[in-house]
Amino acid sequence: MCGSREATAATGRAVRIALGLVYDGSQFEGWQSQSSGRGVQDCLERALRAIADHPVRVAAAGRTDAGVHATGQVAHFDTEVVRPANAWVRGTNSQLPPSVAVQWAVNTNADFHARFSARSRTYRYVLYASPIRPVLHHAQVGWYHLPLDVEAMRAGARALIGRHDFSSFRASECQAKTSVRTLHAITIETRGAIILFTLHADAFLHHMVRNIVGALVYVGKGAHRPEWLAELLAKQDRRDAPPTFSATGLYLADVEYDPVFGIPAASGESPWFDGRNQVVN
Amino acid sequence: MCGSREATAATGRAVRIALGLVYDGSQFEGWQSQSSGRGVQDCLERALRAIADHPVRVAAAGRTDAGVHATGQVAHFDTEVVRPANAWVRGTNSQLPPSVAVQWAVNTNADFHARFSARSRTYRYVLYASPIRPVLHHAQVGWYHLPLDVEAMRAGARALIGRHDFSSFRASECQAKTSVRTLHAITIETRGAIILFTLHADAFLHHMVRNIVGALVYVGKGAHRPEWLAELLAKQDRRDAPPTFSATGLYLADVEYDPVFGIPAASGESPWFDGRNQVVN
Repeated sequence: MCGSREATAATGRAVRIALGLVYDGSQFEGWQSQSSGRGVQDCLERALRAIADHPVRVAAAGRTDAGVHATGQVAHFDTEVVRPANAWVRGTNSQLPPSVAVQWAVNTNADFHARFSARSRTYRYVLYASPIRPVLHHAQVGWYHLPLDVEAMRAGARALIGRHDFSSFRASECQAKTSVRTLHAITIETRGAIILFTLHADAFLHHMVRNIVGALVYVGKGAHRPEWLAELLAKQDRRDAPPTFSATGLYLADVEYDPVFGIPAASGESPWFDGRNQVVN
Repeated sequence: MCGSREATAATGRAVRIALGLVYDGSQFEGWQSQSSGRGVQDCLERALRAIADHPVRVAAAGRTDAGVHATGQVAHFDTEVVRPANAWVRGTNSQLPPSVAVQWAVNTNADFHARFSARSRTYRYVLYASPIRPVLHHAQVGWYHLPLDVEAMRAGARALIGRHDFSSFRASECQAKTSVRTLHAITIETRGAIILFTLHADAFLHHMVRNIVGALVYVGKGAHRPEWLAELLAKQDRRDAPPTFSATGLYLADVEYDPVFGIPAASGESPWFDGRNQVVN
């Protein structure tokens, strides 16, 4: 440690710090560390190292894919240096590129783990339904060029709520031990040309949200009846399901923990939704 | 003309075609043709040439600066070839980069001029007021890091409505013959951390919206009372006014014409506002 910073003080006791993160997934090769150094994790670890004056390893709640955004990602790291809370937010942000920022930082304890302590996650998918392709937000929405029947999609989506084997919506490369997940809720709202899907579950399989959105779009365009969703789910076979929908419209919007850990609600900005479960109508 | 296209037909009679355009200003060096070829105009003329099979010159309603976006830009060009209406929209879009798209195309007549026939324009400024910098939309909003008193800004803005000499809000390089403009309306709305300014005027001076927003932010942060806006306007001197606000939050949202020309309402997508004067609350 170079010790050049005012508030530097190695206590000999590790402190676990949790961070809230927003990032533009179009500028990264996913969350996880890459040999190219283009993972969000690489970027964040470099910035934290500059503030902590020691190498830092971070763990995140959700290992988002390339192109997938976050308005409510949660990560944690351990450090023995003491910094004012502000340093972990403003200081780190001064070291990060425009495409990622820390929203908040809190001291928590060694029982907390950003991924394993999470009780549930909320993902959102922003779909732009318009004959003309999106321009101003082309890297931040999914696009479908034909009109979609939102009521039919809602009817189909209902079959997915509850505890099920979601194998039909699981990527072949998914490494989860089990394909059983509990989908607490799925809502579909519209505003102008935007269709906003919100999915709340204990956890998600790899590509699960994008595969569900892909299947709902098939129902929305009339290629299948709403009942087909229940049939697809029952098949427990990915091979009969429609293609995975584009990563560009997907957001890790929130991660929920036991209040004992003192983790703040997601506060990241989005023009389509703001903060925890506050969908803009 | 290579004549390889099915619907090519030179009629010998020029047709004037009007186009509605959306573009992401962060990807261009402004509207006007540049020696670098990085003006929106350059890009559009190249695409139209590919569809028309002859060189095309376009004129736009508003010559937006570098970084300034459009959801309702209107342009026109003349051609003697006949194409299905769809070719001027989908065909041109297939030749354009992701950062710009044609929304509609209509045949009009030689009396129509995108700039000189315009009766009024609507600009919008999207300001993100938050202690943390914007991430997902950093090139598409202005940013201010302190809380702003929206009621004070509204009170100050009222003094600007009407027919005035707007010299205090005019860029030194502005080439307009007169600095007198009629500001029909200015509204300031909020949604979460977003403050949306909508200005409707017969025409705007160079940097006028960004200079007005800059002055309103001075009032909003409490550096001046609302009455200061009227004093600033009366001075007719740019030197006493606050700095020009960032281009990133500015949108040419709509251009209004006599209905005789049959120009459609702006239909470009925006998560903050949709279509003609339809502000999302």
